[in-house]
Amino acid sequence: MSSPDYSKGVAYAHGQYLPIGQASIPMTDWGFLRSDATYDVVTVWDGAFFRLDAHLDRFFRSCTRWRLDPGLTRDQVTATLSQCVRLSGLRASYVEMICTRGQPPWGSRDPRLAVNQFYAFAVPYVWIANAEQREKGLHLMVSDIQRIPAASVDPTAKNYHWNDLTMGLFAALDAGADSVLLVDAVGNIVEGPGFNVFCVSNGVLVTPGEGMLEGVSRRTVIEMAHSLGFEVQQRALPADELRAAAEVFVSTSGGGVLPVTVVDKQAIGDASPGPMTRKLVQTYWDWHTDPAYSLPIDYSL
Amino acid sequence: MSSPDYSKGVAYAHGQYLPIGQASIPMTDWGFLRSDATYDVVTVWDGAFFRLDAHLDRFFRSCTRWRLDPGLTRDQVTATLSQCVRLSGLRASYVEMICTRGQPPWGSRDPRLAVNQFYAFAVPYVWIANAEQREKGLHLMVSDIQRIPAASVDPTAKNYHWNDLTMGLFAALDAGADSVLLVDAVGNIVEGPGFNVFCVSNGVLVTPGEGMLEGVSRRTVIEMAHSLGFEVQQRALPADELRAAAEVFVSTSGGGVLPVTVVDKQAIGDASPGPMTRKLVQTYWDWHTDPAYSLPIDYSL
Repeated sequence: MSSPDYSKGVAYAHGQYLPIGQASIPMTDWGFLRSDATYDVVTVWDGAFFRLDAHLDRFFRSCTRWRLDPGLTRDQVTATLSQCVRLSGLRASYVEMICTRGQPPWGSRDPRLAVNQFYAFAVPYVWIANAEQREKGLHLMVSDIQRIPAASVDPTAKNYHWNDLTMGLFAALDAGADSVLLVDAVGNIVEGPGFNVFCVSNGVLVTPGEGMLEGVSRRTVIEMAHSLGFEVQQRALPADELRAAAEVFVSTSGGGVLPVTVVDKQAIGDASPGPMTRKLVQTYWDWHTDPAYSLPIDYSL
Repeated sequence: MSSPDYSKGVAYAHGQYLPIGQASIPMTDWGFLRSDATYDVVTVWDGAFFRLDAHLDRFFRSCTRWRLDPGLTRDQVTATLSQCVRLSGLRASYVEMICTRGQPPWGSRDPRLAVNQFYAFAVPYVWIANAEQREKGLHLMVSDIQRIPAASVDPTAKNYHWNDLTMGLFAALDAGADSVLLVDAVGNIVEGPGFNVFCVSNGVLVTPGEGMLEGVSRRTVIEMAHSLGFEVQQRALPADELRAAAEVFVSTSGGGVLPVTVVDKQAIGDASPGPMTRKLVQTYWDWHTDPAYSLPIDYSL
């Protein structure tokens, strides 16, 4: 018997740890058949979780919002995520925790009778932007697809309802852009697939104030801005204001602060990452060594 | 080696048929992690598919809409569904066909690079209403949750974006109702979890005209109504008009035409299934023996 190959990542399912490629969920879990699930993603950088507390806070809030019970305490979730990372040996990792509805007894459609399930996995760190995009800046398109509104699905509780984002992404990629921004019913910018967005407008940082996920990376940007003395406004952001901005960037667990230099095929500023963006990128990575935000993982098995 | 227990249902996954309880999808399939999938459900009654052609038409239309390719021809899908039913031995079955995005190569977020996957399963026929509810009528609640609008996700292409329906269902069940109806942004009735809705208003059948799934059972009701000489209007249906209707029923693959006798704790008519509803229930089952709509399954192995 050779030991399992954990190099591509490790998952936790039904009480077991296994290579990510072997991990599955039951076909009949409502987490799949009704997208009845919540999740959160925390990153590991240089062998330490970044802002794990904030992600756990939100994960348990999301569970409560959707009436899901992962059946694990906060410490047990932390231990499970740590074990996924430890087994993988990954020093930089994208770590996802998931709670699904499970399924009610056959024939019942009462979600209150389902036994909820907890899953997790750790895979190599995921960058939304590759090295060249991080240096030169992303090219985004503004879609006319409306992000699912809060009156339908609460965007502050994480969920897998991504069809609008995915269809927008297809169109943006087809048009030669790197990713997409969705709008609300009146044309204000909301968010993109896996990221929040900011721009510099008249010297002030502006980011949408409602209708989007309240990203932990978004919160980190706001906190960094305050510490750097940048003014931040959380408010409606019309697409035209974004297009006319001096700087644009996105915030995401998939790379932190990522510059955007083209929107709808038009250059932002001089089409290179601006000074406030560069300062926030630098600060983002600096904060990864702050003990207040980082939790080192013990990799000894 | 004993033969597998197919009595609870049979699934098809990755080229194999297996007991439903053993069927799974990869944890990393975007069909789960981004609810990036489509599906359709056809029923088997008395050993024959009911309106399989209509369901296949819609399944392939949904695939095209979401840029999914099941990788099987129409005949191959039919053969796969038939084999699931045949192995199960079920004479009355709920048969689901699914196409998921699969996943792009690790590190990529380009859905165009994913290899789409086809899954299917056949399980015992699912009734949305139990025997007592079918006789006495269902009790529905009108939620103030808005069904995800068409500007975000096209409701005519089937998808698993059910959080709004599931949260509405929780609230309805908590309040003692059997299920829920969701509304649109201006308060018109749209649909419920797994069903369309009709009412009899001034002697005319009324059903919402947009914002909802164009159910095959809904279409069957409209066709039956025409054959019975009932007038049908597909138009906006205000919640108050529904509450004041003489009759209310839902249409679903999970039981056909199901009477509704209470809405928001108020009786519809005399709180028993009305004459037009009863006629449509009878006609629905009569049509199951019409060769134009039924395709017998060869159960010989």
